[in-house]
Amino acid sequence: MNTRPAPASAWSVEAHRDRVEQLLRPLAWREIDRVPMTAALGRRLAADVVAPVDLPVFRNSAMDGYAVRSASLATVPVTLPLAGVIAAGDHGGTPLPDGAALKIMTGAPLPPGADCVVPVEDTVTDGVTVTIEQARATGDFVREPGTDVRTGDLLVAAGTLVAPRHIAVLAAVGLTTVPVFRPVHAAVLTTGDELVPAGTPLGPGQIYDSNGIALAAALAANGVEVVSIEHSRDDAASFREQLTAATESADVVFTSGGVSKGDFEVVKDVLATLGGEFGSVAMQPGGPQGLSVIGGVPVLSFPGNPVSTLVSFEVFARPILRELAGLPAIPGYAVPLRVPVRSPAGRRQFLRGRLESGGVTLVSGPGSHLIAAMAQADVLIDIPAAATELAAGTTVEVREL
Amino acid sequence: MNTRPAPASAWSVEAHRDRVEQLLRPLAWREIDRVPMTAALGRRLAADVVAPVDLPVFRNSAMDGYAVRSASLATVPVTLPLAGVIAAGDHGGTPLPDGAALKIMTGAPLPPGADCVVPVEDTVTDGVTVTIEQARATGDFVREPGTDVRTGDLLVAAGTLVAPRHIAVLAAVGLTTVPVFRPVHAAVLTTGDELVPAGTPLGPGQIYDSNGIALAAALAANGVEVVSIEHSRDDAASFREQLTAATESADVVFTSGGVSKGDFEVVKDVLATLGGEFGSVAMQPGGPQGLSVIGGVPVLSFPGNPVSTLVSFEVFARPILRELAGLPAIPGYAVPLRVPVRSPAGRRQFLRGRLESGGVTLVSGPGSHLIAAMAQADVLIDIPAAATELAAGTTVEVREL
Repeated sequence: MNTRPAPASAWSVEAHRDRVEQLLRPLAWREIDRVPMTAALGRRLAADVVAPVDLPVFRNSAMDGYAVRSASLATVPVTLPLAGVIAAGDHGGTPLPDGAALKIMTGAPLPPGADCVVPVEDTVTDGVTVTIEQARATGDFVREPGTDVRTGDLLVAAGTLVAPRHIAVLAAVGLTTVPVFRPVHAAVLTTGDELVPAGTPLGPGQIYDSNGIALAAALAANGVEVVSIEHSRDDAASFREQLTAATESADVVFTSGGVSKGDFEVVKDVLATLGGEFGSVAMQPGGPQGLSVIGGVPVLSFPGNPVSTLVSFEVFARPILRELAGLPAIPGYAVPLRVPVRSPAGRRQFLRGRLESGGVTLVSGPGSHLIAAMAQADVLIDIPAAATELAAGTTVEVREL
Repeated sequence: MNTRPAPASAWSVEAHRDRVEQLLRPLAWREIDRVPMTAALGRRLAADVVAPVDLPVFRNSAMDGYAVRSASLATVPVTLPLAGVIAAGDHGGTPLPDGAALKIMTGAPLPPGADCVVPVEDTVTDGVTVTIEQARATGDFVREPGTDVRTGDLLVAAGTLVAPRHIAVLAAVGLTTVPVFRPVHAAVLTTGDELVPAGTPLGPGQIYDSNGIALAAALAANGVEVVSIEHSRDDAASFREQLTAATESADVVFTSGGVSKGDFEVVKDVLATLGGEFGSVAMQPGGPQGLSVIGGVPVLSFPGNPVSTLVSFEVFARPILRELAGLPAIPGYAVPLRVPVRSPAGRRQFLRGRLESGGVTLVSGPGSHLIAAMAQADVLIDIPAAATELAAGTTVEVREL
């Protein structure tokens, strides 16, 4: 038996998530960077961008062919004298002589006097004249200025996550920079005397510190810029010093470990004296949680087990961080369980699962230390707090990791 | 009338895509980078990674509580003398005296002699003794070594796109670097005398070069590293020189423009003499396409209209590039048209659309110059070549841009 019911005083998952979101939502109003177009991909536009020019800028040919007056094609077939060639990039000032044709390339400016283009495929030429078989109407194969967008029209709205197609139009109107929100800056601070950095030989009782790098990766994958990844020993003075540095450099701080019921809970001990709230959320894994504001900076304190840390991030931080970054919401589905599940009463359980044809299976038991198993998962399975036994085939909510 | 049937000699979309994929698939076997864990996020793992240690590394406590022998709890309630405290990070060598309890923190090594842990919530202590109400079995709240993963077990398989949960387990076993495939390197080379760089005033007949930066963004958004973005005038010697530089620096080259039926088709003119194949694909937009191999490097030649360029990228390059990068396939759906659609006979049409409740609407007509409209789209609507008129309500395939 390795699971327990939630304490009667536990916060609900929804209540804790709401409080995290309330604390983080003001970060939507962070500073604006004006970045070169090449740096705008994946950033959130901070202001509406309107067209500084018409698109097309000038009347031009939609095809390689011949610019003519449609009136010249009143009787077909007709043979017209060739009066020259207009290439794309030509200034386009040479007028079309009456009753003649000008060879024209796609995108080249329509000459004054011409009102349509005959595609080259529909013509025969001897190099001096061109013979046209089919009548054309005014405007055929002509792109009129402003038919794509007019000066002053909205090109891309504030809040848009900048994708290649947005960059295409912003570049097409000649813009070189765009206003985007700078990313949220986060600091990561792990705790635990048992933790040693990767690359160090393990002594007895020691484990590798994976939470720092894993939280940093989870933040980066969700549009956040990680400004520091630090580790503190279970010592109040050290932790306080590193916490101060973190809150001075970041918009939000994430701590791991030191929030439970042990004798050396440095995160809880220090932050509780600074007004932080620590308690138990009715969930598994990830029950012990803390929430503080230090110097105006939100500090989210997750438990230290690696699975608890990552699940806490998924449940409490990831949705709001994606919203702040302008990233799409995490996809979720309702799918049948392929195996029966037992769950402790009163705790919402987030099991690691794998989508397969016909439903979702578990990749491991509920243990918060099963980090290798979690790497095999692709979804979190959300088991409601009230559920204690779910038969195979029961529909459950899952969301992508 | 601005649309035309496909020429009888046109290649099908499927045939051209197959040839592009055949040319690009060998790029799966590119070199391997051994990168620090922090740089592995979003990269494709180049080799299986197996566990160099067991996880957990040692037998440890799953809870803050008391390490005891389960035999000491044969009769409950029982009051046991407290023999000390074991913190996380302690070496764990001190044995549990017979008939006593050792206070123990989550993650701390279980002392020799103890076989279970009693959670602190289920105990009462006066600081000298601890009173336990409930019997416990061997193994309760104990994490055994190797129960998450055993030395030599597969941790993360070759080909996996590295996500935060993979970084968590790779860091947890103490790895500092991982082998990943380096990204595909691409060069972008746009052509057209009418193009000028953004930030320059437009002269008559000139437009801004948006294809370079848009293609570069599209490549970057799909796991490709862009090594150069260059523009060539419609001059064979200049183009040949820039093409050589591009093929010498990249795994694949993308050109835009110069592939149609005009008099100054520099891309087609140069590459056709070097063995490139140029022709028409039965699609709209994006009909004229070229495919060459120069010095062993595939060169994809897209038409120059900005919408044609981006649609060509979506249809021919993006699926295989995502596969090479280990990124998930592009989501596609079958949805009803909210409006009727007309389409030229014999051409597969890729219309720009927007998903709304109840189906998909068009954001613009078929014109390949409507780049501002494309920025408003979120899907490409795939209209089969045989279709000429589709009523509102007809189910069509769409895929996300």
